[in-house]
Amino acid sequence: MNNNQNILIIGAGLCGSLLALRMAQRGFQVTLVEKRPDLRKVTQDAGRSINLALSDRGLRGLRLVGVEEEAKKLCIPMNGRMIHDSKGNTFLSPYSGRKDEYINSISRPGLNMLLLDEVEKMPNVQLIFNHACETVDLENASATFRNYNSKEKKTISADAIFGTDGAGSAVRKSMFESHKPAGRTGGFLFSFSQQWLSHGYKELEIPAAENNSYRTYKNALHIWPRGEDMLIALPNLDGSFTVTLFLPYENSDYCFANLTSPKMVHEYFNKEFPDVVEMIPSLAEEFFGNPTGPLGTVKCSPWNSFGKVLLMGDAAHAIVPFYGQGMNASFEDVVVFDDLIENYFPSPTSPPLGGGWEGLFKEYEALRKKDTDAIADLAVDNFHEMKEHTAMEIFQKKRKLETAFEAEFPEDYYSKYSLVTFKESITYSEALKRGRAQDKAILNLLDDGKINEEMSLKEKLELVKKATEAILHDDEVAFG
Amino acid sequence: MNNNQNILIIGAGLCGSLLALRMAQRGFQVTLVEKRPDLRKVTQDAGRSINLALSDRGLRGLRLVGVEEEAKKLCIPMNGRMIHDSKGNTFLSPYSGRKDEYINSISRPGLNMLLLDEVEKMPNVQLIFNHACETVDLENASATFRNYNSKEKKTISADAIFGTDGAGSAVRKSMFESHKPAGRTGGFLFSFSQQWLSHGYKELEIPAAENNSYRTYKNALHIWPRGEDMLIALPNLDGSFTVTLFLPYENSDYCFANLTSPKMVHEYFNKEFPDVVEMIPSLAEEFFGNPTGPLGTVKCSPWNSFGKVLLMGDAAHAIVPFYGQGMNASFEDVVVFDDLIENYFPSPTSPPLGGGWEGLFKEYEALRKKDTDAIADLAVDNFHEMKEHTAMEIFQKKRKLETAFEAEFPEDYYSKYSLVTFKESITYSEALKRGRAQDKAILNLLDDGKINEEMSLKEKLELVKKATEAILHDDEVAFG
Repeated sequence: MNNNQNILIIGAGLCGSLLALRMAQRGFQVTLVEKRPDLRKVTQDAGRSINLALSDRGLRGLRLVGVEEEAKKLCIPMNGRMIHDSKGNTFLSPYSGRKDEYINSISRPGLNMLLLDEVEKMPNVQLIFNHACETVDLENASATFRNYNSKEKKTISADAIFGTDGAGSAVRKSMFESHKPAGRTGGFLFSFSQQWLSHGYKELEIPAAENNSYRTYKNALHIWPRGEDMLIALPNLDGSFTVTLFLPYENSDYCFANLTSPKMVHEYFNKEFPDVVEMIPSLAEEFFGNPTGPLGTVKCSPWNSFGKVLLMGDAAHAIVPFYGQGMNASFEDVVVFDDLIENYFPSPTSPPLGGGWEGLFKEYEALRKKDTDAIADLAVDNFHEMKEHTAMEIFQKKRKLETAFEAEFPEDYYSKYSLVTFKESITYSEALKRGRAQDKAILNLLDDGKINEEMSLKEKLELVKKATEAILHDDEVAFG
Repeated sequence: MNNNQNILIIGAGLCGSLLALRMAQRGFQVTLVEKRPDLRKVTQDAGRSINLALSDRGLRGLRLVGVEEEAKKLCIPMNGRMIHDSKGNTFLSPYSGRKDEYINSISRPGLNMLLLDEVEKMPNVQLIFNHACETVDLENASATFRNYNSKEKKTISADAIFGTDGAGSAVRKSMFESHKPAGRTGGFLFSFSQQWLSHGYKELEIPAAENNSYRTYKNALHIWPRGEDMLIALPNLDGSFTVTLFLPYENSDYCFANLTSPKMVHEYFNKEFPDVVEMIPSLAEEFFGNPTGPLGTVKCSPWNSFGKVLLMGDAAHAIVPFYGQGMNASFEDVVVFDDLIENYFPSPTSPPLGGGWEGLFKEYEALRKKDTDAIADLAVDNFHEMKEHTAMEIFQKKRKLETAFEAEFPEDYYSKYSLVTFKESITYSEALKRGRAQDKAILNLLDDGKINEEMSLKEKLELVKKATEAILHDDEVAFG
């Protein structure tokens, strides 16, 4: 019998596995429960996003638990966006002017398996699969699960519960339903939002060519921007690409509501993405066989109930995939949380300080929520940028200028994309504020003709910096 | 038997009553169902907001159904904000520099009774009280109600259903629960948000003095701004004022969590609102007798389901009370809807045009939602402005300048407040865009010392207009 704090983590996806591993490394007694079967034993997830973009914030989380090097073996570096225009022309738009900055394509199940393998090596973790969370007793920190096979119910109590059960979180649902605006006895005010884009997504596959070679350039995130709709593709280690189509549900020339036959799907792809058709041999079968997924943003507050239960990762802040930051933000959650924990639990057996779990949960949210709100908003912005702006001249000019700044003055300039993706030392909310001001400065300087070809790059940079500071100052005066 | 379109309206508050009256005037067959008893026969609503601010957008709705003059008899004009500082000094900050622009304090139940009396005069309206909506069959346009007295259930079908059942709408709840992200058969994506302020509110009363006279200046909205907390008071016809305290729930020197005894309540009021204490003889009794209400913003989309059921008023867009626009926005909903209806139903018996109810509902939301989103955001902004800024020097300077502009150049300048409150010819979203740009322009010109006393008022106005246009232009280039 030990007197360690008992931790129950609900959801053994990427965030839950990383958190379990870290908490176990710190010596807590951890129970990690997952609704689905063990993905190391059962193949699943047909049609769900099977690769993801891993960048600096996510790598920092993996470094924290000592698996960064192992994870890198699963990575394919992507140096930029390969833009495919409607005539089949391509050009590469680098993610950064600095040579060492790139993002990585990584297999979601591959990375999850790696983390679960590490979790399983820890003697102080109990790992339970096939148990779906049905209800959470928020005030008493216990949760009831249903065994997928036997249908039996099982209740687990803990000192603290973490809901890392993803965008459709059952733990968050318990909080939503405990919401009682008037009176508030036994209830609390739970702010909540779910916002859906008018677009859905569909996954398709470009299979590997002979000898696991790639049918198009390997080290890029491919984009076919078409205004209202967009196709992207990320490489996999086996030579294939996972392709995702983003398309309006309805009210568009081409939309999920009217692409109802193989003939129409082929017509649409031949017209919009002629260079892709030949690379997807099973186009129509996949289009009609794979589910159509929605694209939603979820925000909520407070993340904790009664100082007993805390939401983390997608359960607390699901975002749309257009900044490639979903997993990275969740891993950064664990890093931020881990930075604080010693002030409350110097060791897992010592008496809690500073209000214990409740104090810790509140400080964590006070520190973190503005940043997950920021990346949620940035991801929606990027949806519009990717499908529309990447094909527009003024945005291409801006991108070119920023890439030149980063190449020539690597210490002095970070684009909004670089701030978000590569500059882990600043928060998402700072990246949003500075990044948007920079974008506004450059677009207006270009629009006003104030940046011209007689100027040196250094002069252009000074102009952009000055205009950015003026914008930040004016906003500060007006909005505080 | 007639072949008129049958309309079911759920909720006979201000919005539902106005809508029922208008639809009946147009000849539709209307059933109006209310959860509560008939408020003309039973006194209720203790501790709920009993007076409201009625301004131009709301009056336009009342004019549409021909009750504007009757309603005005219930009104007390309020010409400005009477600011009470912590020493008991007061000064009046006019709502506008134009003499004919003011807002009105009006009794909520008084206005509701007036509308219900008019509704009851219409032969084509059936009015049912004491029936609470339990479920709505969205696809088939029928709703089931429970009789409050007999507990019997009753199902009513219609060609179209309107949910005007307020911020806690049961109709909206049916839509929320029909939400099915994946697959979508029989379901739909329902974007929804509820956001709570960290403050709650408590109603108190300044009773009338002798002979129904007023204990403080009658024709103003009184404000005691104190940074984190705030007291306001609106006059009633009987000489009393309805007072509302806005206070944090917790984590503040004074908050609902720690004002737990009559002694503490008196200590708090004596310290913060010394000039009020003597005017509220039953302070502690009311403080502990009246409920604490939450302050929330609700947004959702789509407002209609299956072209059969439409949300209107607070059910579609509940807002916080700090712009005095809740009722006005709901009445404007009816005006906007009524403007469109003839394109779809030239008469209630003619065959529907343009997609009938579904076409109408979609056009209505496409036109209206951006504006109710805007007033929701403006109302939250004004919460901060009222409790903090009204006491800050730079904001007082701005307000003075704007009042002078409006007095001297009444056709050339409208402050953000005037745009929202008195300029019904422009939409809330336009008012937000232009009003925020003006505020930013003036605050920055003041902060930079660019407005000085040597300049004529005309020169100052030109400077503000130029800076405003520059801000709008720069935003347009950067954000479209």
